[in-house]
Amino acid sequence: ADEAAGQKKAASCVACHGANGVAIIPGYPSLKGQNEQYLVMSMQAYKNKQRTGGMASMMQAQMSILSYEDIENIAAYFANMK
Amino acid sequence: ADEAAGQKKAASCVACHGANGVAIIPGYPSLKGQNEQYLVMSMQAYKNKQRTGGMASMMQAQMSILSYEDIENIAAYFANMK
Repeated sequence: ADEAAGQKKAASCVACHGANGVAIIPGYPSLKGQNEQYLVMSMQAYKNKQRTGGMASMMQAQMSILSYEDIENIAAYFANMK
Repeated sequence: ADEAAGQKKAASCVACHGANGVAIIPGYPSLKGQNEQYLVMSMQAYKNKQRTGGMASMMQAQMSILSYEDIENIAAYFANMK
């Protein structure tokens, strides 16, 4: 995966998940250092509408404008954040 | 929330999420230091069948034997792990 490309696409994520991958808002997950494969799986779950309730609809909207390749790059970006 | 009670109930979580809250298995999320409210929300989402696909059915089974109070205690336990 391409972390640099992921960082560009992640511009729309940092508002809620934090520029350093640590979510200040308690209801949102921190992503920094999370397992890469899990990040991919949960973003795909939102994209494929396998998650509902809470923030799911907003996350699904975000994912609808991202390709699976974008998702992999974003996951690599947050997973490898130090 | 009662972290000590959460630790007891978390015995069934550590197999996948790691005794130290860091999941060795890449497809599972690490929980150590995650936002407490997010942990509560995502466990409730599994319990309420708002998540499907992947590990959702297994997680839902785990949640079906836990009360909402257990869920809050487990969330406090992992969120406050150092």
